[in-house]
Amino acid sequence: MFDVNNFLHEGSLSPALYWKGYPKYNFIGGHNDNDCIPVTQLKEAIEKVILKEGKTLAKYGLESGPQGYLPLRSFIVSKLKSRALIDCSEKETLIVSGSLQALDLVNQTFLKKGDTVIIEEENYGGTISRLKRLGINMVGVPLEKDGMDIDALKNILIDLKNKRIKPRYIYTIPTIQNPTGTIMSTEKRKILIALSNEYGIPIFEDDCYADLLWEGERPPAIKSYDKNGLVIYCGSFSKSIAPALRVGYLVANWDVLSRILPYKTDAGSGSLEQMVLAEFCENNFNNHVSLLSNELKKKSDVICGALDKYFGSTAEYIKPKGGIFIWVSLPDTIDTSRLYEIALKEGVAINPGSEWSINPNGKNKIRLCFGNPSTLEIDSGIKLLAEICKKEFGLPIQIANL
Amino acid sequence: MFDVNNFLHEGSLSPALYWKGYPKYNFIGGHNDNDCIPVTQLKEAIEKVILKEGKTLAKYGLESGPQGYLPLRSFIVSKLKSRALIDCSEKETLIVSGSLQALDLVNQTFLKKGDTVIIEEENYGGTISRLKRLGINMVGVPLEKDGMDIDALKNILIDLKNKRIKPRYIYTIPTIQNPTGTIMSTEKRKILIALSNEYGIPIFEDDCYADLLWEGERPPAIKSYDKNGLVIYCGSFSKSIAPALRVGYLVANWDVLSRILPYKTDAGSGSLEQMVLAEFCENNFNNHVSLLSNELKKKSDVICGALDKYFGSTAEYIKPKGGIFIWVSLPDTIDTSRLYEIALKEGVAINPGSEWSINPNGKNKIRLCFGNPSTLEIDSGIKLLAEICKKEFGLPIQIANL
Repeated sequence: MFDVNNFLHEGSLSPALYWKGYPKYNFIGGHNDNDCIPVTQLKEAIEKVILKEGKTLAKYGLESGPQGYLPLRSFIVSKLKSRALIDCSEKETLIVSGSLQALDLVNQTFLKKGDTVIIEEENYGGTISRLKRLGINMVGVPLEKDGMDIDALKNILIDLKNKRIKPRYIYTIPTIQNPTGTIMSTEKRKILIALSNEYGIPIFEDDCYADLLWEGERPPAIKSYDKNGLVIYCGSFSKSIAPALRVGYLVANWDVLSRILPYKTDAGSGSLEQMVLAEFCENNFNNHVSLLSNELKKKSDVICGALDKYFGSTAEYIKPKGGIFIWVSLPDTIDTSRLYEIALKEGVAINPGSEWSINPNGKNKIRLCFGNPSTLEIDSGIKLLAEICKKEFGLPIQIANL
Repeated sequence: MFDVNNFLHEGSLSPALYWKGYPKYNFIGGHNDNDCIPVTQLKEAIEKVILKEGKTLAKYGLESGPQGYLPLRSFIVSKLKSRALIDCSEKETLIVSGSLQALDLVNQTFLKKGDTVIIEEENYGGTISRLKRLGINMVGVPLEKDGMDIDALKNILIDLKNKRIKPRYIYTIPTIQNPTGTIMSTEKRKILIALSNEYGIPIFEDDCYADLLWEGERPPAIKSYDKNGLVIYCGSFSKSIAPALRVGYLVANWDVLSRILPYKTDAGSGSLEQMVLAEFCENNFNNHVSLLSNELKKKSDVICGALDKYFGSTAEYIKPKGGIFIWVSLPDTIDTSRLYEIALKEGVAINPGSEWSINPNGKNKIRLCFGNPSTLEIDSGIKLLAEICKKEFGLPIQIANL
């Protein structure tokens, strides 16, 4: 028999385990609410667009070329104008296969091993793992309740400059930060773009949750203040419509985008999904996102209630203002990587904080996604998690309803 | 203004040109016949599957996990059984975003800079450019009318072994080879798998055109003779259904596939496209492919006729037995890279042979794709190409109908 191990290089990734279904209580992954998928409207959109444009599927890139389906780019341009106050054009917009591809393309364009980037200390696990794999030096900025600690960022910029290290970009998720859920204030956004200009360091703004804000006003995107082409912006329809549609977008000045585009060598993103989204979004996006946010807010309330009920003062968190996850601090004595392992065996999946943070403070934190489980599952799952935690770590001391 | 050039590393890719539409006579790209897109049946398939399973779009990976939509994997398993005599399971099948992603995943898993691979000397431009970019040493096997020159391959294997160089894989497009259109004989397939076993070198079998054969019987896939897990197999729906649907597949023994899967970090391929294909293909695949092949055969006849009429003996080719392209040899005095440049200015796009060959013989060859242009466009385009060629190179001496 062929032994594949003889053909792998040192440092190759660990083998995948064969997938055997989702855990019973699944608090991981950016999944969404099943009942919020707008099935009927999507069906109508598909029927309409495929009869109108189905024949164009004969071409890679339809009639729109390598940047993606033009009507979808037009929708994105108008959506970004009205919701994020970004002034951009279809030429500055690239459709990608989910915002993960946006990360990969930007990284391929700008990074090589040993480079330095500045990122929020607590961060999206997929960003951290990508940068680690590329051998990138991540310098972390602590987060405050209204986004990046700007003084800390200033010190980092000065320090790196003194060391003659030029960070390749400042990566931020300013609106519903992943995993902390913080919203960067308008004031800090303005300071950030000023610093970007002062130091000549581009900003990579990842705004993939921004459409799901249910509390307070959405501040303008950092990109909206960008006069000099320093901001590369990305977003996604995964959270706002459906994760299984792999459609996201990158927005940047053409002189930047034209350097990123050559790295997209996949002959285009799925066109049927682009066509359906363009047709659906034109008339339904705002309504849909508002209904979805309402449902997510209800689930957020349920998970907060369950945490209060079953964990009591053992769990600390800031109530989400939008999105699909909550970032929970447990006492220092609880190693959440261990909790993750034992909980998974009992059918409860959580994100251990160490994978979502580049500082050691992550080790007693967990990220819980509440978009997909039903309200009943949320309640039962958090209860079971509290029981598992108590059994292993002695905390919470008392669990309500037990 | 931000100057992106200050942030690019040495050796970064050239900037993209802004896309301004297709050339008038477009003989490049794996586009398909507009009228062969089964719009009505696709519409019916979509309606059915979205009502049945639309809610599952709330999850990355639907209810099927990271290897792709299970009903589509089941269809692929049964199609490969009946058409290619491959015996595989859903567990051994990975849905990818077009066969280009299959190439990338296999390369990421097995290759690093300086490695050696064995490939057919004339080859798919996307394979050559990928391997070049990765810094891979390509050793070319000449092609005969019935596929690889096996004696040459044996000599290469012996030579590399003597040099203690272990090629990472032997890449082959055995059925409707790209660009030559050759079909590897059953006998050679058996010898190839025997050599693979003898030398312990895996085969990467790219079969993405195999469903479009219209002349002669399709030989069993090399994978069908694979008893020891040496063959990694890939295919695609781009050619058989629609290029703009970005859906392909990789088939390999689980111990191999489990090493490839971790490199697929895009959170899954587009699920709506997978769902639609599964629903459509179950009842329509064979019929559709047979109708499509008939249409392509007609276009193949038209392009052969046009080449005879306008180029006469200046153009030599082997009549295609399937697929969407024809590989044409022009006299040595014609530099097709130059022809490519001047023809493009006149609205005729062709593939210059130098990009589709790793030997210098490619420089007087061209690849012409005939799937997308109408029969009228094929005729007018080839006529114009002959005129441009005559003007620049003095050949063909006489053009019919002029």
